[in-house]
Amino acid sequence: MQTTKVDTPSSKVSEGPSAFEFRKLAQDGKARLGEIHTPRGVIRTPAFMPVGTVATVKALYPEQVRDAGADILLGNTYHLMLRPGAERVAKLGGLHKFMRWEKPILTDSGGFQVMSLGKIRKITEEGVAFQSHIDGSRHMLSPERSIEIQCLLGSDIQMQFDECIELPAERKEVERAMELSLRWAERSKRAFEMQLSSGGAGPGQALFAIVQGGTDIPLRHRSADALVAMDFPGYAVGGLAVGEGHEAMIATLGETLPHLPSEKPRYLMGVGTPLDLIESVRLGVDMFDCVMPTRNGRHGYAFTWGGPLNLRNAKFAEDMAPLDEFSSCPAAKDFSRAYVHHLIKSGEFLGAMILSWVNTVFYQDLMAAMRAAIAEGRFDDWATETKARIIASPQSAPAP
Amino acid sequence: MQTTKVDTPSSKVSEGPSAFEFRKLAQDGKARLGEIHTPRGVIRTPAFMPVGTVATVKALYPEQVRDAGADILLGNTYHLMLRPGAERVAKLGGLHKFMRWEKPILTDSGGFQVMSLGKIRKITEEGVAFQSHIDGSRHMLSPERSIEIQCLLGSDIQMQFDECIELPAERKEVERAMELSLRWAERSKRAFEMQLSSGGAGPGQALFAIVQGGTDIPLRHRSADALVAMDFPGYAVGGLAVGEGHEAMIATLGETLPHLPSEKPRYLMGVGTPLDLIESVRLGVDMFDCVMPTRNGRHGYAFTWGGPLNLRNAKFAEDMAPLDEFSSCPAAKDFSRAYVHHLIKSGEFLGAMILSWVNTVFYQDLMAAMRAAIAEGRFDDWATETKARIIASPQSAPAP
Repeated sequence: MQTTKVDTPSSKVSEGPSAFEFRKLAQDGKARLGEIHTPRGVIRTPAFMPVGTVATVKALYPEQVRDAGADILLGNTYHLMLRPGAERVAKLGGLHKFMRWEKPILTDSGGFQVMSLGKIRKITEEGVAFQSHIDGSRHMLSPERSIEIQCLLGSDIQMQFDECIELPAERKEVERAMELSLRWAERSKRAFEMQLSSGGAGPGQALFAIVQGGTDIPLRHRSADALVAMDFPGYAVGGLAVGEGHEAMIATLGETLPHLPSEKPRYLMGVGTPLDLIESVRLGVDMFDCVMPTRNGRHGYAFTWGGPLNLRNAKFAEDMAPLDEFSSCPAAKDFSRAYVHHLIKSGEFLGAMILSWVNTVFYQDLMAAMRAAIAEGRFDDWATETKARIIASPQSAPAP
Repeated sequence: MQTTKVDTPSSKVSEGPSAFEFRKLAQDGKARLGEIHTPRGVIRTPAFMPVGTVATVKALYPEQVRDAGADILLGNTYHLMLRPGAERVAKLGGLHKFMRWEKPILTDSGGFQVMSLGKIRKITEEGVAFQSHIDGSRHMLSPERSIEIQCLLGSDIQMQFDECIELPAERKEVERAMELSLRWAERSKRAFEMQLSSGGAGPGQALFAIVQGGTDIPLRHRSADALVAMDFPGYAVGGLAVGEGHEAMIATLGETLPHLPSEKPRYLMGVGTPLDLIESVRLGVDMFDCVMPTRNGRHGYAFTWGGPLNLRNAKFAEDMAPLDEFSSCPAAKDFSRAYVHHLIKSGEFLGAMILSWVNTVFYQDLMAAMRAAIAEGRFDDWATETKARIIASPQSAPAP
């Protein structure tokens, strides 16, 4: 496959050094190499965003996340609005300062988590009334409030408020949620433009839309086309990896991405396993986020260049080999499988700390390897070799 | 108070570079500055040993413990014999290699924890039969087995097997346990000598005795005198900080230490608060261990040079000041009180990681400051100034 060099900026929200801009640098098949320029730094794409749910990537120091190679991380609007509170974060100087992360931050809109975690009181055209899972306190999320919160946090890339439903679901229900999300996209966009004009957001910040529609291709097309007509600086594919399985996800993605403009960044939300990432990059996805590296780490699961390891397994009890001799993470070379097995079995902090670190580095190194393969025009060969090495079978996707 | 310089070695177990040796370098009043030389490195005294219960100092990487200035750490025989097991640790190359700690390790004998954690089945002259708190499996600890385990772990400083009882207790009960511990001291010593002659231990390893007797001074004297007659290379004071309070502890210590030889290291087990450490060093103690820096850290408590902080307190919710501007721990300067308050309230790993680190550094810096004050012959002045600074009152001793 020939690599196409793209030298001119592909997408620019506004002019000047403080602009938000996506530059496509190369393409290999449908896989894209690029850079998102923001006032807080450049995001090399394809990019994986570690998840810092409540203003911390679990069990990692911010320096470890940065040194792993992450150019951007994700914060959760739902969690942060409840604790410590968006107004409080704003008062303390914004999320970057609060959590000591100077690079870009993307925040979700709260739409996904208010459904999965909040005690829903009512979904209306206006928004979602819910009770906090922490203390039962009553809150309202709407497109306008979600954007307001994301601006208070100081998020560099904000997401439209949407309704994300679990799959499988009736087509009618999928369609209803998708259509509602389209109307909320328009309101989110208007709210963000208000923030821009009032100084609540700056020209280097951007709002992305979210394509919904489940695994129904015509619904995905309708959602994508309508959102593209609204002209957002980036587009996410939401509502996948919610129970439909790898094959259905990739199939849906393959039919959805061609309806998104090639000069804008594309973000696949909440995904996923190394296999998911490779196959999605192959289709042209530029950004990902997922709790898998840290959550699986806390449960004793290591992603390595020799394939996944479940360190809880008794076979590691006397295995003094390092976790992963091919890793660029110091902990992967320093600590033995036997020791980490012991730590995990004993419920020790250090076990979660080591594996969250090793996995976060693995994910960043995987993205770096994909970027190099695209630049060299050999993504397909790289993917075949790498999958043989790190994935036993599509079924080996870890789910602790 | 004039400092006495002591240039000649004070105590040497055997000759040669692999010997265990205590060198007293200076004395200020009763406070002593010294070095314990072992084949694995020099321990600067007075020394505080971080506790690595199950082969990890909780929530810290080994490098953080080392860089904090710790020359030695403590491992718990009771925990390690149950998981991962002493024979397994030996098979894997010993505790140092297993947990990546190259400096000296002191192990307790298991006596204290078998009483507090194990489901006791029977205490006899022979030893203690008990069931594991982890899985109910049946085990036996005796002086001989305790020493065998400590040798299998590869411990540099081993402790005699003893019976430690809670205070307050009947004098008769205190006396019975003390007398039993004396007989177990003899058996521990014989067992250790057998290990030395069979190669299970080397000349650089040492076995310490433990003075018991509660807060009963005549019992303490009888215990100390009997142990000194057996000639150990070091002496611990055990059975304190078990409920008797700071004043009673210091009073008992003051009466006990004069019965121990000045040329041997003295170790106060399981102690304590910064105030406990200062007052004990003043009386001539050389070594300490305690879970307080890490346990209190996990519970949101910070030791700082401006006094203790309970980060759970709502008053820190918007306090963007660093945890401790006078600390030598990077985390104390980098992270704000507001952020750590949020992390602790949210039950996040990073809160425990930061505070365990800050507190471990505080304890090491406190010991370094005491060593410097002794070297300069101004321990009393230093203690007065420091107590005013870091301790609000004797009652401020933290107990999360």
